[in-house]
Amino acid sequence: MPAIHAERRSRLAMSVVEAGADAALITRLVNVRYLTGLESSNAAVLMYPDGRTVLATDGRYLTMAAETAPDVELVKERGVATALAARAVTAGPVRLAVEEHDVTLALAADLGKAAPSAELVHLGQAVEKLRAIKDEDEIELIRQACAISCRALDDLHAAGGLLRRTEQEVARDLEGRMYDHGADGLAFETIVATGPNSAIPHHRPTGRVIERGDLLKIDFGALYRGYHADCTRTSMVGAPPAGWQREIYDLVAAAQRAGCEALAVGTECIAVDRASREPIGVAGYGEQFGHGTGHGVGLEIHEAPTLGYAATGTLGDRMPVTVEPGVYLPGRGGVRIEDTLVVRDAGGPELLTTTTKDLLVLDA
Amino acid sequence: MPAIHAERRSRLAMSVVEAGADAALITRLVNVRYLTGLESSNAAVLMYPDGRTVLATDGRYLTMAAETAPDVELVKERGVATALAARAVTAGPVRLAVEEHDVTLALAADLGKAAPSAELVHLGQAVEKLRAIKDEDEIELIRQACAISCRALDDLHAAGGLLRRTEQEVARDLEGRMYDHGADGLAFETIVATGPNSAIPHHRPTGRVIERGDLLKIDFGALYRGYHADCTRTSMVGAPPAGWQREIYDLVAAAQRAGCEALAVGTECIAVDRASREPIGVAGYGEQFGHGTGHGVGLEIHEAPTLGYAATGTLGDRMPVTVEPGVYLPGRGGVRIEDTLVVRDAGGPELLTTTTKDLLVLDA
Repeated sequence: MPAIHAERRSRLAMSVVEAGADAALITRLVNVRYLTGLESSNAAVLMYPDGRTVLATDGRYLTMAAETAPDVELVKERGVATALAARAVTAGPVRLAVEEHDVTLALAADLGKAAPSAELVHLGQAVEKLRAIKDEDEIELIRQACAISCRALDDLHAAGGLLRRTEQEVARDLEGRMYDHGADGLAFETIVATGPNSAIPHHRPTGRVIERGDLLKIDFGALYRGYHADCTRTSMVGAPPAGWQREIYDLVAAAQRAGCEALAVGTECIAVDRASREPIGVAGYGEQFGHGTGHGVGLEIHEAPTLGYAATGTLGDRMPVTVEPGVYLPGRGGVRIEDTLVVRDAGGPELLTTTTKDLLVLDA
Repeated sequence: MPAIHAERRSRLAMSVVEAGADAALITRLVNVRYLTGLESSNAAVLMYPDGRTVLATDGRYLTMAAETAPDVELVKERGVATALAARAVTAGPVRLAVEEHDVTLALAADLGKAAPSAELVHLGQAVEKLRAIKDEDEIELIRQACAISCRALDDLHAAGGLLRRTEQEVARDLEGRMYDHGADGLAFETIVATGPNSAIPHHRPTGRVIERGDLLKIDFGALYRGYHADCTRTSMVGAPPAGWQREIYDLVAAAQRAGCEALAVGTECIAVDRASREPIGVAGYGEQFGHGTGHGVGLEIHEAPTLGYAATGTLGDRMPVTVEPGVYLPGRGGVRIEDTLVVRDAGGPELLTTTTKDLLVLDA
């Protein structure tokens, strides 16, 4: 892995040059991890345009840092960012590029005190932009995370017995199955939303008991070696769908297909959202689809690119993204269908969440 | 609950006045939750010195916001902070107090564009300071979280059969037991560290199999209605402690007792750290205790006050804190013992993590 991290750093070095900076201070922890492999709650990286790198962390993570990043200089400090800023100015004033979406006003003031001769300039989301395009090792980890997630859902469906269980019980059952299949953790808090609760896009599982004729919406994913899976499936429990349930299911399924089909290298991100949103709007449910169509997935569950109605940028090869339209009828119920897929150069996107999207009737 | 939130806001209103501000913009999500009850990934609060409050959030959380905070004005916006800043200046220029430990340089620039006539001033950690002193309802939730945690650990110990299981298996077992006892989630990622791994203060459970004669260090806690428990216990597995294991156990236990006994209203936070650190230093293990002695616990697992070797401030009535010294011998093993306790006006601190601190020999 150190070789991969070194390669990522050398790509970032070009952004340091582009920012017209003498050095870059990376403070976003997930970006520090991406560049060094170190997962820590207190670490920062100082990078020079020639690729030289200094990693600062405190005593708790020092052993791990030495193992993970044997090829970078290590500094033991509690105040990681200020220590690195001070080091950056030892040879005189510098233009120091910072992650302005991460550096708070309070930290900026501290940096000013620790390194008065440093002029803070904007690095922008340079690391996040690099991260949007995954290497094949990363894609393999996301593939594994998605496979674990899908196996767990298939098991849950096969085991049955969902009627009369609570949302919380179903969530824990599914989570246990993800661990059984090798998950290191959960990609995010599992959403199990039943009956009227399925109309709440971001619902937290409650003690509500699943009733015959409920929609069962499950948004879930495994975490595997730092990488996230994201999948949503909606099913019926105990009875075939009523007319309105079938209608919104088929509509969302068609919208989701259209979004997936729009995934291609060079396509504008906003066009993916439009592809999913249009059929829902035409059917008169535009107001009932109040969130974006998708997002990138990787070391974070939500990362670049954004596939929303105000998205900018275009898709590139090896970008894993979600496509997840939904229709939510308050007080009645809702449907969301979500896949994680990888944008590919040729042959269409690679589907990672391969569990069925047919409308299952569980416990029938 | 709305009454409690209103009371918290009226206490904050005094800080707005003290900051010499015309309004305060609260952007830290956990602080928004504390002031309104709304748990959201996108929300902000605008507070005037007279207590008038506007809560902004996006479509995903609007229903929840209306239910949780029926007594505040609600604004539906995606750009919550900029929308509120723009609203703050509708009647003319204002001094707008912001949480400078939360507002990034990027957000500050956006606020400047949305509300050019707003002068940003420092609110400081005003909400965090309020949060350090809990109301009895909050303490009851932490008490419940700790009771759930301790019951789960007692169950794990009683069930036995730890030998030959992996750290990961033990972590999942314990987590399942917390859910069984009513946890809503995990307060943080469970640490199960065995044998030489117990010398790593922040160890993530691995596939390492527990061997006879291992130290077993478990740092864990339940999340209950948003409030956190934090508890660490270290045990022996399969064999009584060797001399060095007994020595560091007794030392850490004595240091932990000394820290707990130091908890009193008006005591300096740094004195609690000193009370735990001194016996460890005297015994010659000062270098092997590389972290602070404790921290506040509440809506966050780590919050004010800090009980470290550079801590400032004094303890107050109704502050829940941890006391968690440790000694770590790289390559051999380590011991940490941690309680969550509440500083009380009279009668000494209230112990919330009541499970035994005797050195248990499991699977003997």
